[in-house]
Amino acid sequence: MSAERFPQIFARLQRGPQIIGLKDAALVAAYTGAGPGDVIVDAGAGAGWLAAYLGHAVGSAGKVISYEVRPEFVQLAGENIKRAGLEKVVQIKKADIYEGIDEKDVDVVTLDLPEPQRAVGHAFAALKRGGYLATYLPNIEQVKTLAEAAKEAGFVDIATYESLQREWLVRPQGCRPATTGIMHTAWLTFGRKP
Amino acid sequence: MSAERFPQIFARLQRGPQIIGLKDAALVAAYTGAGPGDVIVDAGAGAGWLAAYLGHAVGSAGKVISYEVRPEFVQLAGENIKRAGLEKVVQIKKADIYEGIDEKDVDVVTLDLPEPQRAVGHAFAALKRGGYLATYLPNIEQVKTLAEAAKEAGFVDIATYESLQREWLVRPQGCRPATTGIMHTAWLTFGRKP
Amino acid sequence: MSAERFPQIFARLQRGPQIIGLKDAALVAAYTGAGPGDVIVDAGAGAGWLAAYLGHAVGSAGKVISYEVRPEFVQLAGENIKRAGLEKVVQIKKADIYEGIDEKDVDVVTLDLPEPQRAVGHAFAALKRGGYLATYLPNIEQVKTLAEAAKEAGFVDIATYESLQREWLVRPQGCRPATTGIMHTAWLTFGRKP
Amino acid sequence: MSAERFPQIFARLQRGPQIIGLKDAALVAAYTGAGPGDVIVDAGAGAGWLAAYLGHAVGSAGKVISYEVRPEFVQLAGENIKRAGLEKVVQIKKADIYEGIDEKDVDVVTLDLPEPQRAVGHAFAALKRGGYLATYLPNIEQVKTLAEAAKEAGFVDIATYESLQREWLVRPQGCRPATTGIMHTAWLTFGRKP
Repeated sequence: MSAERFPQIFARLQRGPQIIGLKDAALVAAYTGAGPGDVIVDAGAGAGWLAAYLGHAVGSAGKVISYEVRPEFVQLAGENIKRAGLEKVVQIKKADIYEGIDEKDVDVVTLDLPEPQRAVGHAFAALKRGGYLATYLPNIEQVKTLAEAAKEAGFVDIATYESLQREWLVRPQGCRPATTGIMHTAWLTFGRKP
Repeated sequence: MSAERFPQIFARLQRGPQIIGLKDAALVAAYTGAGPGDVIVDAGAGAGWLAAYLGHAVGSAGKVISYEVRPEFVQLAGENIKRAGLEKVVQIKKADIYEGIDEKDVDVVTLDLPEPQRAVGHAFAALKRGGYLATYLPNIEQVKTLAEAAKEAGFVDIATYESLQREWLVRPQGCRPATTGIMHTAWLTFGRKP
Repeated sequence: MSAERFPQIFARLQRGPQIIGLKDAALVAAYTGAGPGDVIVDAGAGAGWLAAYLGHAVGSAGKVISYEVRPEFVQLAGENIKRAGLEKVVQIKKADIYEGIDEKDVDVVTLDLPEPQRAVGHAFAALKRGGYLATYLPNIEQVKTLAEAAKEAGFVDIATYESLQREWLVRPQGCRPATTGIMHTAWLTFGRKP
Repeated sequence: MSAERFPQIFARLQRGPQIIGLKDAALVAAYTGAGPGDVIVDAGAGAGWLAAYLGHAVGSAGKVISYEVRPEFVQLAGENIKRAGLEKVVQIKKADIYEGIDEKDVDVVTLDLPEPQRAVGHAFAALKRGGYLATYLPNIEQVKTLAEAAKEAGFVDIATYESLQREWLVRPQGCRPATTGIMHTAWLTFGRKP
């Protein structure tokens, strides 16, 4: 029997052009309260890493529907979800979230795509009262545009964070941070439907 | 009916002398894979914030047993767990984890106490194969002592991280990080039972 | 005889609404090569901290001319320059740098004002070949506007940095960064006249 | 005639096994007040980068004496000092600073070597009243040992900093920090002779 837990499975998923690592996926879950039983709409799936992370967090009582328009990513994300054993929890859906969200009363919407402002009204409509929006954006101009659109759509408690993580070398001969590392991934912006 | 989700509940828990905020609790969950159905042993409970976070993550199919020796913290943590509606998932247990861990086959052990090296052997014994240890330590000397003890106890993949989070002010008149903030909380060290 | 050196003098200058601390002044000097004998044009003087730092760096063989339009800051900066014993090196000049720079063949121009793009052409004209521009801007939109204007004005090697400094508590009982601190001051942008 | 200023010269010096970059050299100068006319003792020279930086800062009225025991580094540092045109200001001295410092009444002593605690008493004796010590150490244990030794030697205002610098990509299509970079160089510790 396999003694593997999720961090090891996650680390072995296939990489796409841009993936959300543990540090950022962790914050998406924490600031949206993503947990057992939640229904989450995610877009774009990309390589499916965030969808997998959220699928693990919501568990078999929950559901993640991850929108993706590019056929090659529908394929890649689907494979990764299978690899992670989450095919009963996570659905990769070939659809354009800019066109609308079919689901209703969802707990969380996560948007990792270049123009989330085009989906933020759909997200607001799809969310339950009290539900959370999370976006993941590499350039600060995108964050500004999104934050304004989220406010106009009706979201409250809009907050933006960046997170810097350093690995430390903890050794008998001396402790210090690793010399080089990731200096920037993306800004995380959250909003709540009141 | 309340439209509150966990981040709002978490933010309103009563504070103790030292609490683990969302940013660090998120990483504890992410790097241990804490999720639905897990059985987690936590110590010391303190104000119960990490226990509450983990209780939310494991859900009703899981269990968090949080050790605490100081009566006033048993009380405070208990109140916070009730406030969070997690009393069926999280048990605050008045016991000294340095003396031993009663539970067997647990998925994760989290240690937020000054001398985790005194509990690391108990943690190894209590964990399932593949289970994870997480510690939370404010001084680097503690990390070094713990990392050596964890290695001796048999843990593998021992890794230490620190995380720096900045809130950004995203405003029409200009975007910038907030001027002041938290520069340090603690180091997170993880290990896996092979 | 006083045994005081510049860091102590600098720390005791009178504060204005916004001052440039040692960490950023140090980088302005480093990335422009500000040193003995240089002629530097600075604006706006504000409380005169950067002018004082640069005055110390260029020494008695150099010169700092610091433009300032607001009479109360001309006064405050003048007092600080006297306090620092730098009145033979640093001149606080009541003039609007947006209108032009009188000096020619200067080594460095430093701009710590809200719209440096309005002075960047004047800076280019005033600088020697090989001379450096430095700007200090708290919002990222300002940096973007400045960087574009600097490029159009003819500057090369345009680069932008931010610097985060943590003080560490190094104590027998344990080493760790101080808990709270300054998370953001401003971006430093540099350019060189080819 | 060359239009080169120091930052360009500095960037072209030959690299050794470990060099002090602009960001850290800048802080050494800032926190010690290194400026025109100062006499500075530095050790070990290594590739001579810090000696060159300080030589530029003290100028022709000042002096930097940089101790080095390894012949290959005496050679390399000497070449770099020539390259920087600082041979009249900076002397690379083949001597072991652990054995003692010949100079008296110096303004600043900078120690970039593995066991600065062995030279800290010599540094105290060599410094003027009010003079500054600076050390540059990659492991935190070294910082702790040095800080205790500096206190015992009589230094006051002992403070330790680490500095993190991010380069930003400021582009029409979007602004963001560069993805990867230097996460750690060394801790800077300063002390003052009262």
